[in-house]
Amino acid sequence: MRKISVSIIGASGYAGGELLRLLLFHPYVSISQVTSRKFTRLEVGEIHPNLRKVTDLTFSSPADLKKCDLLFVALPNSVSMEYMKDLQIKATKIIDLGADFRLRDRKVFQDWYHTPHIAPEMLSTFIYGIAELHRKDIKKAKYVACAGCEATVSILTLYPLVKHGLIDKDIIIDAKMSSSQGGNSPTHSSHHPERSGVVRTYKPTDHRHEAEIKQELSPFMKDIQIAITATTIEMVRGLLVTIHAKPLAGVTEKDIWKAYRSEYQNEPFMRIVKKTTGNYRYPEPKILVGTNYCDIGFALSKRENRLVLIGAIDNLGKGTAGQAVQAMNLMFGYPETTGLEFPGLHPI
Amino acid sequence: MRKISVSIIGASGYAGGELLRLLLFHPYVSISQVTSRKFTRLEVGEIHPNLRKVTDLTFSSPADLKKCDLLFVALPNSVSMEYMKDLQIKATKIIDLGADFRLRDRKVFQDWYHTPHIAPEMLSTFIYGIAELHRKDIKKAKYVACAGCEATVSILTLYPLVKHGLIDKDIIIDAKMSSSQGGNSPTHSSHHPERSGVVRTYKPTDHRHEAEIKQELSPFMKDIQIAITATTIEMVRGLLVTIHAKPLAGVTEKDIWKAYRSEYQNEPFMRIVKKTTGNYRYPEPKILVGTNYCDIGFALSKRENRLVLIGAIDNLGKGTAGQAVQAMNLMFGYPETTGLEFPGLHPI
Amino acid sequence: MRKISVSIIGASGYAGGELLRLLLFHPYVSISQVTSRKFTRLEVGEIHPNLRKVTDLTFSSPADLKKCDLLFVALPNSVSMEYMKDLQIKATKIIDLGADFRLRDRKVFQDWYHTPHIAPEMLSTFIYGIAELHRKDIKKAKYVACAGCEATVSILTLYPLVKHGLIDKDIIIDAKMSSSQGGNSPTHSSHHPERSGVVRTYKPTDHRHEAEIKQELSPFMKDIQIAITATTIEMVRGLLVTIHAKPLAGVTEKDIWKAYRSEYQNEPFMRIVKKTTGNYRYPEPKILVGTNYCDIGFALSKRENRLVLIGAIDNLGKGTAGQAVQAMNLMFGYPETTGLEFPGLHPI
Amino acid sequence: MRKISVSIIGASGYAGGELLRLLLFHPYVSISQVTSRKFTRLEVGEIHPNLRKVTDLTFSSPADLKKCDLLFVALPNSVSMEYMKDLQIKATKIIDLGADFRLRDRKVFQDWYHTPHIAPEMLSTFIYGIAELHRKDIKKAKYVACAGCEATVSILTLYPLVKHGLIDKDIIIDAKMSSSQGGNSPTHSSHHPERSGVVRTYKPTDHRHEAEIKQELSPFMKDIQIAITATTIEMVRGLLVTIHAKPLAGVTEKDIWKAYRSEYQNEPFMRIVKKTTGNYRYPEPKILVGTNYCDIGFALSKRENRLVLIGAIDNLGKGTAGQAVQAMNLMFGYPETTGLEFPGLHPI
Repeated sequence: MRKISVSIIGASGYAGGELLRLLLFHPYVSISQVTSRKFTRLEVGEIHPNLRKVTDLTFSSPADLKKCDLLFVALPNSVSMEYMKDLQIKATKIIDLGADFRLRDRKVFQDWYHTPHIAPEMLSTFIYGIAELHRKDIKKAKYVACAGCEATVSILTLYPLVKHGLIDKDIIIDAKMSSSQGGNSPTHSSHHPERSGVVRTYKPTDHRHEAEIKQELSPFMKDIQIAITATTIEMVRGLLVTIHAKPLAGVTEKDIWKAYRSEYQNEPFMRIVKKTTGNYRYPEPKILVGTNYCDIGFALSKRENRLVLIGAIDNLGKGTAGQAVQAMNLMFGYPETTGLEFPGLHPI
Repeated sequence: MRKISVSIIGASGYAGGELLRLLLFHPYVSISQVTSRKFTRLEVGEIHPNLRKVTDLTFSSPADLKKCDLLFVALPNSVSMEYMKDLQIKATKIIDLGADFRLRDRKVFQDWYHTPHIAPEMLSTFIYGIAELHRKDIKKAKYVACAGCEATVSILTLYPLVKHGLIDKDIIIDAKMSSSQGGNSPTHSSHHPERSGVVRTYKPTDHRHEAEIKQELSPFMKDIQIAITATTIEMVRGLLVTIHAKPLAGVTEKDIWKAYRSEYQNEPFMRIVKKTTGNYRYPEPKILVGTNYCDIGFALSKRENRLVLIGAIDNLGKGTAGQAVQAMNLMFGYPETTGLEFPGLHPI
Repeated sequence: MRKISVSIIGASGYAGGELLRLLLFHPYVSISQVTSRKFTRLEVGEIHPNLRKVTDLTFSSPADLKKCDLLFVALPNSVSMEYMKDLQIKATKIIDLGADFRLRDRKVFQDWYHTPHIAPEMLSTFIYGIAELHRKDIKKAKYVACAGCEATVSILTLYPLVKHGLIDKDIIIDAKMSSSQGGNSPTHSSHHPERSGVVRTYKPTDHRHEAEIKQELSPFMKDIQIAITATTIEMVRGLLVTIHAKPLAGVTEKDIWKAYRSEYQNEPFMRIVKKTTGNYRYPEPKILVGTNYCDIGFALSKRENRLVLIGAIDNLGKGTAGQAVQAMNLMFGYPETTGLEFPGLHPI
Repeated sequence: MRKISVSIIGASGYAGGELLRLLLFHPYVSISQVTSRKFTRLEVGEIHPNLRKVTDLTFSSPADLKKCDLLFVALPNSVSMEYMKDLQIKATKIIDLGADFRLRDRKVFQDWYHTPHIAPEMLSTFIYGIAELHRKDIKKAKYVACAGCEATVSILTLYPLVKHGLIDKDIIIDAKMSSSQGGNSPTHSSHHPERSGVVRTYKPTDHRHEAEIKQELSPFMKDIQIAITATTIEMVRGLLVTIHAKPLAGVTEKDIWKAYRSEYQNEPFMRIVKKTTGNYRYPEPKILVGTNYCDIGFALSKRENRLVLIGAIDNLGKGTAGQAVQAMNLMFGYPETTGLEFPGLHPI
């Protein structure tokens, strides 16, 4: 296959670094530039120590960005929309890993991000990056906006059940988060003695990712209600959502299996994990670290008339960089799993 | 004050060890015997290394148990009810830390524990051990059954709101658990490489503690529905519950504050933790390790019409051994906080 | 006993916070002021969340410091010596927790701290704060300089063997450190995703605490050579040193036991931990968290002609705040263990 | 290239599982059988949850082992030597991951393992598996015995300096270990509440791996003295050794760089890590998890006349399974890095 030239804007962050790791081993990718304003001219291995001796790339200044086939944009929220017009000149195709182009409705964006969108006319040109829902559109897309990590795992866990009409519209997502989701800038709350061992509910209600989830699922269920509670725990990398839902009358375990199978049986990165024995009976984020898998499990209680869904991903994998590479594979006609074969580690 | 003689049956477990730690520093307690079938004649410090040089007690055989003023029973579930009759001969008063005497209704017991109760006639003689709800009865009690740890923190978090009629009857408890709750017997799932870093949902629905919570709260709310999902995380000690509830129409943040204050403002171990700044804005179990505190926080969302309650305890403190000492203080007329003054550590 | 009035300068740091926790429960202490430049007028519980509801103290400005019986100084290195003269006006007695007054020789100070001492004439007025070595002098002291945490555990572990002439002068200290030793200011290296799970050798050679250790042990062994390697690991609180030494010809295990017993058998905070069975056969810092203990173990190998010493403390306990309270007890004639009875937790 | 058929005896353990993970993605390997006595007929993903959906292999009974080109033996110590004769009938080539065939001298084996060797005549037929020392012999070998994990990293760290005559013969290895090194059988000391957060010196002196290290390094330095102290810390996977050595007179930092470069500059898995800035200035095991790298750093102190060497590996990677695959690549003429390209993760 033809190799494409690829650059990453904002490659010194955790998402950028993970993306770079994946792309360095991708057989059809030639990395052109990786930029960092702060670390210009520094070797990549100084910031991403796992890439020492793996690559001798150095960070370029964003000002020196050259034309390339595909540009990955890994900039902070609200910075991406500032530069997007300029970036579009540099590359035929763009995959944005930030939040700025995920929501199609500028009013919804403003409602949740408390600032007007700078480039609202571009919102409709981006395809939401979850391949399992938008594969056809991503294949033809020029611009893709990758989903937020909580949104990714929540949508993937809910989608088959919502689509098949098995659950009530009132949905609670109790998310267990990791420290890498906060990015790589130290704060007092990320200071190890303060952060270690916490069970810290930093966003009990009104989490921004609710908007993305509603946008993606409301076509299948009018008036869907999403409520996220986000609690960060002792974990560097990984994300698990416990979704508390109500099954509609008469829904059986078999119906749920059927819905998941009908949507995901041919999906290479989706696994249903529901065992009666063993340590890993339900999804477990630690064995997904470095992978592009999304594992889903569930339990239905008659006594409680309740359905508990459990979804797990690597927030930097399927939740960000893996999702981006999967989208790239689709956009350029490569086999969808190329460069995403790492199976994860055990023990870890 | 008069010193009482106290013994602990089953003192080699984690609950027994923590109880012993507290009692060794209690000014009105003289420890008579601590028993262990498995470790008879061994020094206590061999099993509880924090008590080396602190005490030279050795474990007695349960067969050699002498009479005492107060007996703490820290035996596994279903073992306690087997021996309770015999134990009652040995002591004027008994505090049971296990599950066998918490439920007053033998049918409910059988329904959840899948075995008939051996001593059903004794069920009504035990007072449920949460002082904040049953202080008067505990003061007069001969027999007290301490609450389960999830039940303790869930009941304490919910009680004021249920009593004051502020929330809907449909209640979801998402519990974040620690490894010490599994006791001190190794299994493959507690093996460090398998257990470390997990977000392991071991009981997604139909958790036994639902029965206790219903028993305690149903007097204030008929047909209350309790659904627990239990997920164990990277934490040795500590327990946090995230309770997802629906506020009744018109309920304001002020109403919730008022309910908590009216029930807990004079409670020495209850703290409402709800801040807008700092790392510890909501309850955090790690700073409660070793203490008898129960910290409670909440967030009310108008947008989501939802109330998130957050409760945290040390599962071996307020959740077990601390609760037992608090009950003892009430039963013998000591100041309620005696021996429970440890404030917890930071950083930790 | 008469209560003394005590203030803490620099009470918002980890050492200051731990000291405050201990003093709040000390029966003969009345806390007058706790100062913080940065957090003036803030409630103490905002910074030290374990002290919420325990105290309603607020931070004072250092400029408002009033006279008191005893002043604890918990300022950063080199700041302490700047203010010491002014502080001596405020209090009859002073205990300094920083590094500025530990070394008696100004040249040695300059050699290790790369700056001239501001108040060299005061160096001789401070007594080094390890009670086990300087009890008599501390009792009479006006000014005490608490030892550094690595120095404390290293000196206590080595002292009996050096004094009794059992080991060679060439001594290697391999220290395993925790994140709280870095203080409470966030840096990129303390950022949780970067700090979590590390085995990070941040000071392989030429560690400053070598100077203190030499100062304290050289009276017993001329030309003693101390070499520290400091590696920080996944631990918030605690410190363990592995000391690699050579036994002198003919030295037996019995000789070592004898040396330790002769020096420490009546010491309330020193424990020799050397077992052949159980999980806790050698010292273990996690069970010392919150305590003032120093646990010591050893192994002698004939095959290797080598003696391995193992010493563990809580760096914020015996390594800092506990040591300071122990010194205070001596200086004011209180029983030496007052306020330091907490035995530590297990499991933790 | 021709694909070879490969089987693993003892594939349910951690070493076997990691080996299987690597081999499943090796382009020139076809996995014939993976055996487990205990889990015969179970799907591999039940025991190694990271391999779910990656393979549908099931465990075979060892009794059903068929002939293959290469057999990996991952059996417990002393079991391997019992079956080796029978296994040699099954395969042309064998790579043993256990300890039984590492030492060439039967007396040394008996001295350290306290049991006579069952198959002493086979000892000389095995090549020690570290490619960096024995590449030529491994290429021609029928039988390879992979080194122990502490031995691997210690030998690799010391070898250039010993060979080039830069250090004294008296060498102390302070090893920081992880819980996966204890294998996958639960014990009370691996029980999470007991194991979590420890700094546990389980083998202060007389560690068996000393024999391997001496065997490998004594050809370059007569009378080399090796003393290991092994301390296990809060880490599931990874191994770091701090080696305390004395430089010979006149040895400079440049000499050390030169020795390492001359031996390792063309080695694909050896990296010298010695930086003056950044978080990862010295080797760090966490970023090596899943890789075959061995990172080495050092610090030379004139003041202390001391050389500290720091070596890090993944104990299940370069320390076991990675080393085995590297040896396989050499034995069958594949490019040495085939299947070992994973660069490790950051953050983790």
